[in-house]
Amino acid sequence: MFALQMGIFMKKIKIGILGFGTVGAGVVEGILKNGELMAQRTGIFPTIGKIADLDIKTDRGVKVDKALLTTDALSVIDDPEIDVIVELIGGVKVAKDFVLRALKNGKPVVTANKALLAEAGRELFEASAKSGAGIFFEASVGGGIPVLRALKDGLVGNQIKSMYGILNGTCNYILTRMEREGLDFDVVLADAQKLGYAETPPDLDIDGIDTAHKAVVLASLAYGAPVPMDAFTIEGIRGLSHREIEYAAELGYRIKLLAVIRNVDGAVEMRVEPSFVPEKHLLASVHDSYNAVFIEGDVVGNTLYYGRGAGRHPTASAVIGDIMEAASGKGGCSDWLLKNKPPSVRDAKDVSIRCYLRMSLKDQPDVMAQVAHVLGKNQVSIASIIQKEENAGGQVPVVFLTHKALEKNFVAAMEEIERLDVVDGKPVRMAIEDFE
Amino acid sequence: MFALQMGIFMKKIKIGILGFGTVGAGVVEGILKNGELMAQRTGIFPTIGKIADLDIKTDRGVKVDKALLTTDALSVIDDPEIDVIVELIGGVKVAKDFVLRALKNGKPVVTANKALLAEAGRELFEASAKSGAGIFFEASVGGGIPVLRALKDGLVGNQIKSMYGILNGTCNYILTRMEREGLDFDVVLADAQKLGYAETPPDLDIDGIDTAHKAVVLASLAYGAPVPMDAFTIEGIRGLSHREIEYAAELGYRIKLLAVIRNVDGAVEMRVEPSFVPEKHLLASVHDSYNAVFIEGDVVGNTLYYGRGAGRHPTASAVIGDIMEAASGKGGCSDWLLKNKPPSVRDAKDVSIRCYLRMSLKDQPDVMAQVAHVLGKNQVSIASIIQKEENAGGQVPVVFLTHKALEKNFVAAMEEIERLDVVDGKPVRMAIEDFE
Repeated sequence: MFALQMGIFMKKIKIGILGFGTVGAGVVEGILKNGELMAQRTGIFPTIGKIADLDIKTDRGVKVDKALLTTDALSVIDDPEIDVIVELIGGVKVAKDFVLRALKNGKPVVTANKALLAEAGRELFEASAKSGAGIFFEASVGGGIPVLRALKDGLVGNQIKSMYGILNGTCNYILTRMEREGLDFDVVLADAQKLGYAETPPDLDIDGIDTAHKAVVLASLAYGAPVPMDAFTIEGIRGLSHREIEYAAELGYRIKLLAVIRNVDGAVEMRVEPSFVPEKHLLASVHDSYNAVFIEGDVVGNTLYYGRGAGRHPTASAVIGDIMEAASGKGGCSDWLLKNKPPSVRDAKDVSIRCYLRMSLKDQPDVMAQVAHVLGKNQVSIASIIQKEENAGGQVPVVFLTHKALEKNFVAAMEEIERLDVVDGKPVRMAIEDFE
Repeated sequence: MFALQMGIFMKKIKIGILGFGTVGAGVVEGILKNGELMAQRTGIFPTIGKIADLDIKTDRGVKVDKALLTTDALSVIDDPEIDVIVELIGGVKVAKDFVLRALKNGKPVVTANKALLAEAGRELFEASAKSGAGIFFEASVGGGIPVLRALKDGLVGNQIKSMYGILNGTCNYILTRMEREGLDFDVVLADAQKLGYAETPPDLDIDGIDTAHKAVVLASLAYGAPVPMDAFTIEGIRGLSHREIEYAAELGYRIKLLAVIRNVDGAVEMRVEPSFVPEKHLLASVHDSYNAVFIEGDVVGNTLYYGRGAGRHPTASAVIGDIMEAASGKGGCSDWLLKNKPPSVRDAKDVSIRCYLRMSLKDQPDVMAQVAHVLGKNQVSIASIIQKEENAGGQVPVVFLTHKALEKNFVAAMEEIERLDVVDGKPVRMAIEDFE
């Protein structure tokens, strides 16, 4: 169907790949498989120029001419015949040196490295703007989902009111299995590690850092300026109890690790935390290792983008899309990202949210009144209460859903509640997201 | 946040709008509201040059200088100062003349007109390729959802294996209300018309024509060639009984009007029909007038794009995105769409699907055997049967879910079943979509 007509106008480009791991091999595989199709679609024929990796002996499951392989990344970055550099090394330090050098050489760079973008974005954009070589990073957020293009191009006429992202496949996989199988966090994590769905150590994923890296990239593109990591409050899913998942289900919710970026009256809330998502909301139906981003624009209204958030092929799809964009001569968005002041960030204490509270109370007449009094005194108003006829050692579990209140009021109330004699252990508090 | 720095490099463009209806007014509103933001993002400042409509007296709810309004479309199309033409007239005949004239004048055209694209796509792409002026049509499919960009750019490295679209907001609104409120089709349709959610007459929407127009555009972009309307078999939701919706719910499905475009062994199935969608699939959670497109690429895997499928603002968002793309000098995809042969279409008779069958059988001992025999004889194998202890006038309703079988075998079997003495009235048959 796609017989190639290599006319005189067909431009051929040479790609230099740094890092021949899972994604690198996927990129090579995709280009070998669909290069002709891409040439048809764009008028540009992509070819693999060089591939650098410290390990050039391991079989990557894809056929490449051995002459293309080198252990010397600089010989790729500095090769005048290479048109586009693809950085797939990961990590921050070495990757940054390589990317800066490529940009300085005037070569556009494609990267999937969210940690690098989150931690050194401004420096990269400045180097890119200075040399005029673009930096492209669709693969850094949401794997194969073309969500950054949607933000940059499709929604170019929109002010972004809010974004809610399920951005970490490992966490979503763990939450899905906890929910379906009624298992504890530690059990699922250990199994996920055994199956290769979670890293060892798993901290970057389960503590929300990876989600925050990606959220930084989303926020930067939404507001046209590099957003610093410390704009985000970050909480992961480590140690989440299956009790919360069960109560959530009973109340018509599912628990998802959400990145929330929301402009309220000109100040932007930015946080990563496990949240109650109404089960009828599309994000609640994003299962397993899938990712999704829900974006509300002031003109378009609500939109959602869904797909595999990681993995050899999905990530390769996004990298390849960026390679073709870089090769088309488009300069990327570095200039724009340096033109604006970062958005003003709403202090975490002043964010208004609904919460789920679970605590263990002594089984005696006045306990509910004591807790309700502390909540009320701190301007936290109760929307509903679940107390069942359970009693374990004189303790009853009680769950409160609150109306919206300020974070600082929740913090004050919870500190006080924890000190009450009638409360046993540390109460659990989680955000409820109603997408309003 | 977005103070405009109109530097010497800022390019200003003048937009000529044909058709000042709902969407036209939304486009003007969006550009007046967010023009500076767009200029920041793209370096191109969009301005309204002229607006043509036969009615220039009605208040459109947006402030425009009266001097910009004209009843003479040609004075807009032929004005050398106008950089981009936006066609929002709708219909095929007049719109086509205007679009062809604009392209011939070398002006890029942005259109939301799916009927025009479906019925005269090749002619438009040829005119566009000849003059070098691009034609951009993101708004023609899925309203504000940037799904065509995803296909063209984000998924450029993918062969498209399948696409499943909920593409008509009116039908999805009707189906959602039938499901939620247990109402009959006619009742909901009449109410939707009263509320302005359905046109009068509603034929284009409820008979699946509008969905097919949009599916033609999707298929054309997926396979790189204008696909003709008659490649699609089309069935709408007219007269759908709430019995089907109830049985669907009982069986764990929801009924959606789906456009299905699926490449099976090199031949592409193209059909529009109401289908059983498993309630756990994301498409089953697309409610009300929302649209969504589920796209499977050979590299990226499964992705989904969701948003408002119509309306003043969502459609305007897509039109504005296209205006900025057209203004950036990108030539569109007309060249590419003319390079390939249209995909080979699988004959409707040879499509393999699962089906839901409901029929009314006489309450006598051998009926089930007779029906099962006819199905078996025609290579249709039964996956499950529901027969309840109902009996209305000696008739019992029976529901069969089948395994996959060829459409021609279903047709033959149903003809034979209809002729059986034990079968009362016309059996109902609907496709079950398992997304495999």
